[in-house]
Amino acid sequence: MVKVVLIGNGNVGCYLYNTFKETKGIKVIEWYSRNQTKFKDSNVKISNSIEELPDADLYIIAVNDSSIIEIVNRLKINTGLVVHTSGAVNMNILDSFKNYGIFYPLQSISKKHKNTNKSFPYLLEANNKKNQYLLEKIVKKIKSNFYCLNSIQRANIHLAAVFVNNFTNHLFAIGQRLCNENNLPFEILMPLIIETTEKIKTLSPKEAQTGPAKREDEITLDKHLDILKDPILKKIYLTLTDSIIKLNEKEKL
Amino acid sequence: MVKVVLIGNGNVGCYLYNTFKETKGIKVIEWYSRNQTKFKDSNVKISNSIEELPDADLYIIAVNDSSIIEIVNRLKINTGLVVHTSGAVNMNILDSFKNYGIFYPLQSISKKHKNTNKSFPYLLEANNKKNQYLLEKIVKKIKSNFYCLNSIQRANIHLAAVFVNNFTNHLFAIGQRLCNENNLPFEILMPLIIETTEKIKTLSPKEAQTGPAKREDEITLDKHLDILKDPILKKIYLTLTDSIIKLNEKEKL
Repeated sequence: MVKVVLIGNGNVGCYLYNTFKETKGIKVIEWYSRNQTKFKDSNVKISNSIEELPDADLYIIAVNDSSIIEIVNRLKINTGLVVHTSGAVNMNILDSFKNYGIFYPLQSISKKHKNTNKSFPYLLEANNKKNQYLLEKIVKKIKSNFYCLNSIQRANIHLAAVFVNNFTNHLFAIGQRLCNENNLPFEILMPLIIETTEKIKTLSPKEAQTGPAKREDEITLDKHLDILKDPILKKIYLTLTDSIIKLNEKEKL
Repeated sequence: MVKVVLIGNGNVGCYLYNTFKETKGIKVIEWYSRNQTKFKDSNVKISNSIEELPDADLYIIAVNDSSIIEIVNRLKINTGLVVHTSGAVNMNILDSFKNYGIFYPLQSISKKHKNTNKSFPYLLEANNKKNQYLLEKIVKKIKSNFYCLNSIQRANIHLAAVFVNNFTNHLFAIGQRLCNENNLPFEILMPLIIETTEKIKTLSPKEAQTGPAKREDEITLDKHLDILKDPILKKIYLTLTDSIIKLNEKEKL
């Protein structure tokens, strides 16, 4: 049985709590949060005293990036493995502990939307092989997969995730705005959005690229810039079009 | 039986040919293309003489936007309905004909990738109700759905499609590049990409937005800008981040 202390009850903390609750061989023995009120329905021992946590195999710090250092400074851990769940924070923030590492779920986790597909990977890192092995064992128990990355690789993947998830979602928001402004339902775009993702299951994004920027179709590009009145949308259009054209030219070389 | 003459053998022309071939009640009686060599395996009468097309109920001009006017000027049609398949070109380009309209498939169609989901909509427009009805009948026969839009609405949806499809795909290409540069497979990002689309089936894109720009997390934003060396990628990052922050601020008002 792997005994876990969970620190933080945000999106990732709650997701991990619920995942571990359903997993044989892992037990959350205590859950720390500054905010006790959210925990009334929980079946786990709740704590708001970070200095007095019980002995455990694994301490998972699942708090905002900017709060990790505060937790690190207050935690008193002897032998347990201490990990954080951030994509962007270097592992060396934990190097005051004897055993430390990273347990970063590469997924957009939010309480508002229940994740149906649990097959996303965890990006793991640890200060030695024994600790790495414990993290791998936990991922296997929850039936996910993993990649072993160093902090630089992880920071780059976290950045890539911003492009393919956060920025992509913002483009969807722009699509919705253009629908609203023309009295059309956003559903009209959904089959195209779904196909955009379907396509890159069999083609690389470079092969799948279509559209006026790819064709360098200046008549359509001008038409679109003429329709767009908002200077921010115009700038997004120009910046992404420019990048597609430059990538095209590079490929021709 | 609806008799169709198809003009053009690009992505859309070929897609429509294959779709109609499988559809009861629609027959492609002739297929025009400047380029004859691509047609060797076809079971339809092929023509390269645009001035001598047979009588038909429907003439579908499925050529590049910039070639539509050339086809229009050479076509001699008395009573058949003439449509084009472009998202960006106004219907009035066809107003020299008696019966004209638009038959625009709102999907990213390419020969390289076989479309599995045929439930995408066609955006229809016609110069009178009878012609509109014929286009609706055809969409129903091929078991798709449709929206009746004017040319301004269609141009806006075409523009929205560039944001949600072409630009989104380019963000995926950037994600792939960041993976390659860090010796990681692009597959690492696929579950996140799939979840990005899954999320907006139940949440609006505004509600689904997460990430450092949404949180206005300047430490992470600075880290990412520090990692990005390519000035084009830096500009994309800054432009989209700025747009997310501005949208956030607008919502707080």
